[in-house]
Amino acid sequence: MVVDKSYKIATLGSHSALQILKGAKDEGFSTICICIKGREKPYKQFKVADKIITIKNFKEFEKTQDNLIKEKAILIPHASFITYMGFERIENLKVPYFGNKKILKWESDRSLERKWLKQAGLKLPRIFRKPEEINKPVIVKFHGADGGKGYFLAKNYKDFQKKIKLHQEKKYVMQEYILGVHMYAHYFHSPLTNETEVMGFDKRYESNVDSLGRISARDQMALPKEQVDPSYVIVGNIPVVVRESFLPRYIQKGENVVKISKKLVKGGLFGPFCLETIMTPDEDIITFEISARIVAGTNPYIYGSPYTWLRYKEPMSTGRRIAREIKMAIEKNKLSKVLG
Amino acid sequence: MVVDKSYKIATLGSHSALQILKGAKDEGFSTICICIKGREKPYKQFKVADKIITIKNFKEFEKTQDNLIKEKAILIPHASFITYMGFERIENLKVPYFGNKKILKWESDRSLERKWLKQAGLKLPRIFRKPEEINKPVIVKFHGADGGKGYFLAKNYKDFQKKIKLHQEKKYVMQEYILGVHMYAHYFHSPLTNETEVMGFDKRYESNVDSLGRISARDQMALPKEQVDPSYVIVGNIPVVVRESFLPRYIQKGENVVKISKKLVKGGLFGPFCLETIMTPDEDIITFEISARIVAGTNPYIYGSPYTWLRYKEPMSTGRRIAREIKMAIEKNKLSKVLG
Amino acid sequence: MVVDKSYKIATLGSHSALQILKGAKDEGFSTICICIKGREKPYKQFKVADKIITIKNFKEFEKTQDNLIKEKAILIPHASFITYMGFERIENLKVPYFGNKKILKWESDRSLERKWLKQAGLKLPRIFRKPEEINKPVIVKFHGADGGKGYFLAKNYKDFQKKIKLHQEKKYVMQEYILGVHMYAHYFHSPLTNETEVMGFDKRYESNVDSLGRISARDQMALPKEQVDPSYVIVGNIPVVVRESFLPRYIQKGENVVKISKKLVKGGLFGPFCLETIMTPDEDIITFEISARIVAGTNPYIYGSPYTWLRYKEPMSTGRRIAREIKMAIEKNKLSKVLG
Repeated sequence: MVVDKSYKIATLGSHSALQILKGAKDEGFSTICICIKGREKPYKQFKVADKIITIKNFKEFEKTQDNLIKEKAILIPHASFITYMGFERIENLKVPYFGNKKILKWESDRSLERKWLKQAGLKLPRIFRKPEEINKPVIVKFHGADGGKGYFLAKNYKDFQKKIKLHQEKKYVMQEYILGVHMYAHYFHSPLTNETEVMGFDKRYESNVDSLGRISARDQMALPKEQVDPSYVIVGNIPVVVRESFLPRYIQKGENVVKISKKLVKGGLFGPFCLETIMTPDEDIITFEISARIVAGTNPYIYGSPYTWLRYKEPMSTGRRIAREIKMAIEKNKLSKVLG
Repeated sequence: MVVDKSYKIATLGSHSALQILKGAKDEGFSTICICIKGREKPYKQFKVADKIITIKNFKEFEKTQDNLIKEKAILIPHASFITYMGFERIENLKVPYFGNKKILKWESDRSLERKWLKQAGLKLPRIFRKPEEINKPVIVKFHGADGGKGYFLAKNYKDFQKKIKLHQEKKYVMQEYILGVHMYAHYFHSPLTNETEVMGFDKRYESNVDSLGRISARDQMALPKEQVDPSYVIVGNIPVVVRESFLPRYIQKGENVVKISKKLVKGGLFGPFCLETIMTPDEDIITFEISARIVAGTNPYIYGSPYTWLRYKEPMSTGRRIAREIKMAIEKNKLSKVLG
Repeated sequence: MVVDKSYKIATLGSHSALQILKGAKDEGFSTICICIKGREKPYKQFKVADKIITIKNFKEFEKTQDNLIKEKAILIPHASFITYMGFERIENLKVPYFGNKKILKWESDRSLERKWLKQAGLKLPRIFRKPEEINKPVIVKFHGADGGKGYFLAKNYKDFQKKIKLHQEKKYVMQEYILGVHMYAHYFHSPLTNETEVMGFDKRYESNVDSLGRISARDQMALPKEQVDPSYVIVGNIPVVVRESFLPRYIQKGENVVKISKKLVKGGLFGPFCLETIMTPDEDIITFEISARIVAGTNPYIYGSPYTWLRYKEPMSTGRRIAREIKMAIEKNKLSKVLG
């Protein structure tokens, strides 16, 4: 059977759009990039977009819908798209959408997210509901657009009380501080084959926290405190492979998360997702977050990861894997199974 | 001449087995993965094992031997296999084994290892035999299964005396502390061509020590000491390239190590090995260990490293390089040259 | 049209020569490696040099010229070549040279370099001309062959006065200390198509500064100060991808630098170049240096980078991109456009 190539793949020009559009082209689709004015250059230079639709800002996104529908576009969401749109606007979109919209609520609400991960049997860092409960070091994270800025460590309740004074009126979470290295595990769950594949691993490159260690302790103590306060703003990603003896557990975690998701919402989680973990010296794997869509940590693997090269004969990025799933769904006349 | 494809490649399902099995398949061999029960998933998911033999634990390994011999399997050792089996059990294995078993003793005994590396002209960190001899900062490393946990720095003899009290009855080594960055150099020595190839470089990703620098010095000083004590448990690997002007010296070191090994044991070191080095700001290269078999630091390069792509027209992992050597040996009717 | 393959590609055996020579061969050129005696091994082992010319030291480089001219060699400069030769000797070379020699002066003189970058609209760290002007933390960098050794941080004027005493009679620069992570952006500007391509990103691996963070603050404070003083000697490079939302700005910076270079010198900057930047938690990009030729940070991408794989159907290293440009120039009979 010949695939209906009249479908097009569309995404917002940011985050992992290069990978998504390139992957779509590799699978034979035409591509559309919806760009905020002034941000078109990467998509032109790298020649991944057959068509670029420019909008002034995110408020205008819905204006592109009629056009996208006419073009038979399937929209691929990514983290920036979801953050800027919010899951309620996304639920109202009419354009065909890859993934399960119903899972977004579970990802974006911290207490629902914890419920999900706990049911899947994952170890989570403890969350303290009241400051008075703090009985071990905590990391205090703020909500919203400021990204990773202003997070702080407090070694106990007293220390917390002192430091929180600088952050009046902000919403925050008090999370048990776990010392270990970060490992971001990337998965793809196929609703067609019902398999959860490991796509790769990365570690984030964050400013300024990944430069702190390059300043000697003596110099840090000498510099003004404000200058060396850590912040966790993501500016890039670094490829990593995980110790092979941990892989069975990572695979299990991915499968469990998918399994439980099917009890939470109809259709469950499918497509790309990421478990954000800390690996401790005791060889525990603590999951502190799930991202229920493609994350930027797959960007080092535009030409395939060490893991996808084990299984595929061609360079299989997560972006391309999405397009392949859509192609398979079209071929099997099951497109509705991959749209949310 | 047609290669005898009736030989199969077998390895233990852990460490670098994905790479070894994938490489064997790419060279046309059938593959067998011996798995501890419950750890089969990666080898199934990534479709690298034509057959999986499950055992309950490592004590059962020898039970698989008759089967492996009947299948004409050649066993590829890796670090986990050697650690779990011990070199004495390995010496008694009857199944054909890739590599030189006789070199394992030289690798696993710290004083033999030093003798080897010194004769090869490598710079080593000083080892202090008695605590009273400590006249500069040392890192104190413990033996055995606890991996990298509990290692500590002592700035002098007095400091050592204080800190060692927490580690009664453990065996340890007092090694001169050298400040510089780690660089793991991967080699492959072919007994057929007598060439020592550079296969790539990596740096390890260790918990918690690779997260310490992300905590500001002020926060570290405020946290309880036990919470920020370093440990060196390997949880992954990160790809690196070395400054090109250092390459001639790295090549020389690899060649020297092989050359001396031939004086130490019949047949000498062949197959994959790794020199574990520290590069100092004075551009010295200090070797603190040799691994006389494939190490997990080659895992980022399942689809080839920047170095193997220079030389090979196909993706050449260290795992595949092993299979290629076996294939060449079969073709040339010299299989005994690569078996130990 | 058949390309005139009688041209050969030559470079000095160091820095990024493996990549340059391999790329040249992939584009169909014969290659020549000029090697300092004793450093030939990598170029032999990796089989990238069709001919190796050995010289005793850099003073002898000009002796190879007649030979190179006779061979119809085109010389590819890299950082080590430029450092060892100096731009004045390079200006006097008679052998065809890829790149614009006139731009080297602008790169090697710090005040000209700043003028260039400022005109291109880039944000730079402040430079203090007199110690008395120091009103915020500074990093003090020394000139010359000692590389990154001895750089120090000073938190204010008083601190500077104290620390500079240890470095009498050295030339130095006092640069505003900016806390953020380093990001090295690699570009290629084609004088034939007038396009500035993004080739990839890396972060450097520097000794000892990239091992400092692995020592706990307590241990650092306990060790003798001289032992944990930072130095910034480059010993390798690590692959990174940049957050996609920063790409439009990085592309713009590259284009601006090229545009302004055309006002500074005839022909302007072309071929590979690198912007050396710091990304701050406020999402500023501060450029602290430009390298107007290939840098070693492209070495992780001998088999293509995540960015070049978006655009090219074959593995496109920066070294290969150079050879392709020369090939295109020969085909279009515009070789003079790429020679300086």
